[in-house]
Amino acid sequence: MKDPTIADIDARRQAAGKMVAPTAAYADSDMFKLQCSRKPAAKRWDNHLTDECLARAPGILKVAARFLKRPGMISLAGGLPGTDYFPFNSISAAIPAIPDEAGSNMSETESTITMGLHDIASGDATFDLSVALNYGQAAGSAQMIRWITEHTELVHNPPYADWDTCLTTGNTAGIYQALRMLCDKNRGDSWITEEYCYASALETALPMGIKTVGIKMDADGPIPEVMDELLTNWDAAKKGARKPHVLYTVPTGQNPTGSTQSAARKRAIYQVCQKHDIYILEDDPYYFLQLRSDLHSQHNPSKPSASTFLANLPPSFLSIDTDGRVMRIDSFSKVVVPGARMGWVTASEQMIERFIRHAETASQGPSGFSQALIYKLVDEKWGHQGFLDRLQHLQTEYTARRDVMLAAFDKFLPKSIVSWNSPSAGMFCWIRINHSLRPNAKLYSALDIEEEIFAACLKRGVLVAKGSWFRAEPDMPLNDVFFRLTFAASSAENMEVAVRTFGTALRSIFKLE
Amino acid sequence: MKDPTIADIDARRQAAGKMVAPTAAYADSDMFKLQCSRKPAAKRWDNHLTDECLARAPGILKVAARFLKRPGMISLAGGLPGTDYFPFNSISAAIPAIPDEAGSNMSETESTITMGLHDIASGDATFDLSVALNYGQAAGSAQMIRWITEHTELVHNPPYADWDTCLTTGNTAGIYQALRMLCDKNRGDSWITEEYCYASALETALPMGIKTVGIKMDADGPIPEVMDELLTNWDAAKKGARKPHVLYTVPTGQNPTGSTQSAARKRAIYQVCQKHDIYILEDDPYYFLQLRSDLHSQHNPSKPSASTFLANLPPSFLSIDTDGRVMRIDSFSKVVVPGARMGWVTASEQMIERFIRHAETASQGPSGFSQALIYKLVDEKWGHQGFLDRLQHLQTEYTARRDVMLAAFDKFLPKSIVSWNSPSAGMFCWIRINHSLRPNAKLYSALDIEEEIFAACLKRGVLVAKGSWFRAEPDMPLNDVFFRLTFAASSAENMEVAVRTFGTALRSIFKLE
Repeated sequence: MKDPTIADIDARRQAAGKMVAPTAAYADSDMFKLQCSRKPAAKRWDNHLTDECLARAPGILKVAARFLKRPGMISLAGGLPGTDYFPFNSISAAIPAIPDEAGSNMSETESTITMGLHDIASGDATFDLSVALNYGQAAGSAQMIRWITEHTELVHNPPYADWDTCLTTGNTAGIYQALRMLCDKNRGDSWITEEYCYASALETALPMGIKTVGIKMDADGPIPEVMDELLTNWDAAKKGARKPHVLYTVPTGQNPTGSTQSAARKRAIYQVCQKHDIYILEDDPYYFLQLRSDLHSQHNPSKPSASTFLANLPPSFLSIDTDGRVMRIDSFSKVVVPGARMGWVTASEQMIERFIRHAETASQGPSGFSQALIYKLVDEKWGHQGFLDRLQHLQTEYTARRDVMLAAFDKFLPKSIVSWNSPSAGMFCWIRINHSLRPNAKLYSALDIEEEIFAACLKRGVLVAKGSWFRAEPDMPLNDVFFRLTFAASSAENMEVAVRTFGTALRSIFKLE
Repeated sequence: MKDPTIADIDARRQAAGKMVAPTAAYADSDMFKLQCSRKPAAKRWDNHLTDECLARAPGILKVAARFLKRPGMISLAGGLPGTDYFPFNSISAAIPAIPDEAGSNMSETESTITMGLHDIASGDATFDLSVALNYGQAAGSAQMIRWITEHTELVHNPPYADWDTCLTTGNTAGIYQALRMLCDKNRGDSWITEEYCYASALETALPMGIKTVGIKMDADGPIPEVMDELLTNWDAAKKGARKPHVLYTVPTGQNPTGSTQSAARKRAIYQVCQKHDIYILEDDPYYFLQLRSDLHSQHNPSKPSASTFLANLPPSFLSIDTDGRVMRIDSFSKVVVPGARMGWVTASEQMIERFIRHAETASQGPSGFSQALIYKLVDEKWGHQGFLDRLQHLQTEYTARRDVMLAAFDKFLPKSIVSWNSPSAGMFCWIRINHSLRPNAKLYSALDIEEEIFAACLKRGVLVAKGSWFRAEPDMPLNDVFFRLTFAASSAENMEVAVRTFGTALRSIFKLE
């Protein structure tokens, strides 16, 4: 079966005719897929789910809402405020044009997107504020689910039939809800993460009483053989936890180490998960921040076509997930804006249905303002082609930022004690300090020296992130000193100043020069 | 001490000077209060909190962010995307003017609110998209916390010193997070609700394994004597749950019964809660939908002043809460728009701090688009005075809607079998059907007859809400048949058609002419 293309999506929309999705309309991915018939179904995961998750029933009023599909039905049932009282006649946004590769473009520099209160009734719009700003489905609006379904098929094309998607209020909520679904302290559950792990994920699991087990990493991410050995030899009594049945991983531009799993690494990890019946949470907010290696040449390379761009993206866990054992957690935070507090998850229909039941009582789904404005932006203004153009532009920009940071490392850091890899994706550089070279190193723990460097930087006006903040198992002894530095937020000038200061602090502590 | 006024708030802002609150700035209510020095402190609630709640530590990266307060600090620590890449130069909204009492107004019919990406840097703005659309505090932006603190002091003026507020992603999340803080199935926790209760609250507690205990109600809400007796005689073994330590109540225009607790009723319930060490969750989304009784006269009454309007509002639990035992859960859903998915909670500093720790891993707070647009609307466009004007306008509108529904009841419903009260607040009428008057009533259960009426309405094109959907304890036998009808959403014509149809269905089933 050929890969889906943007042209296929356009053709499907054309054939489907105008989308009709009024207030709180139900939608799922099957309504918008190009392909599914010849793929196998996902496996079932009932034995992975918590009692709490299994006990969730559909909201009674959401069930009642299905009667509203009948034409002419008058409802006195739902407590929805009248849209006549909404104090927003319309909302608009000024959108900057996406610069072309040379940064020179552009026939327009800014354009406007607008959504009115009654655009659906008064014209040929598919979405308006009377729908977006009223109560809706916790899964998100049909309008956004269509875009996300199309995007997922274009980019990941999951190899099983019954995959589904729903919106989230961001990856934080995605991780939180996934953990509530899968892990229960009453049955002694634990989960596996990278040995250095996104701090918020660890802070989510800890108060729930879920034990975190970190897997040793190399430059390619967690090491499958280490994971296999750990699981094969798991001793529940000794470990104080049931054998882990969930893997949480950030496969691209990992936070904090910046490492990116190769396709071969992902396949090896997936096989270990199949062997040990592990469910995979693929948290991949940096997936589209692939950093290019071809920008160092004198000539800007020509912009690749959409199909080349897509073909060059590494395979996600979702794209190799023949079992339906992956929940992929995606975000608009790094590629549009974090403040949208909106993302989405993709998994088998069974898992998405349970996820939505939870969202109905935990959040009722993301903001209607976010849905309205992001829909207007990514669907109507950009479309799938424009979104890919945007991503290519971001990649160019973040690549240039990374290169500024790496050049500053090269210029200002003492290489006798500092080492780093060049990250191929994301926002982070991960710096190792050979702390054993500190004068009188034996008198200090790694934690002491890490704190000494951190404080010396702070005193000089630079804030960096300690590696120890990200340890999956903070009770284990710290053997290495790392720092995480981001090239995402600061100006080139500030990055250079900060890295020079970091180098000065190190030289002072390590008595170099 | 005199009640706070809008003039006092204006004077405090004037004296405080321009607000400076950059990206992810920390804020709490103490920064914006008029009064607190002479009030007593709240009691502590440690023994009410769950193990999970007590185990929550502050997010390490949020703690690190406090170093950013130092002027000139360069951060390479936080993974915030660069605001230069935000694809929104500005957002705007067209806001309808608030009609005056006669509905005739108005010098303007519409005005525009706008927020740009760099308004703070380029002018005298207090909030802009570079802040609103980046990562922020889970408690919400300082800008919104200021407005909410002022509003709370104006309307409720809690009688203890250390009250605090934070934003939520809506009352659904407020209830959910409060339950996680307070109730734990592992210690056999239960909570008390009205005998007929907001379905989503029940659906939140059930999968968590929290037992719900419903308190019998009269026209004024839950009956304090019944509650006292239940708690005094609680037998944990027989009930299969620890004595309840949490009350969940919707005191105004209760969902589903439409009942509103009088001031005396609230005081009586509060005393029972003091006696039995009960923590109170006051979920009050309909508080400002007070329905007036003075609109039946021929002449429109003159619009009351802000101080008269505020003085006529009934006391909330928060306003009589000398112990700090109330968490008040407030919403923009009924008075602005539900799609904002934004509300706020007010409680003692101890409880708000725990609530925020949870929000940091559950949601990271509400959408920045919602915060930006609601701030521009309620703070800059309306101000506190304009918000009260808006509320008065809504009250007039919803009162007229209620009266249309009550007139239709009077005209179309068979009074021999149907009874109702006139709701003094909210969106709902609660209709009791004397099902014992159905021919051959003894052959059917109340549930059977309820379903028969529901189905007969559906067949005729009208959807109503069954009373049984809202039962706190659905396993108990159903003795009464109720239906909840809302006057919020439908047009006057549709309400009349639907009520007539409801009457026709009843006459057919009960063989009435």
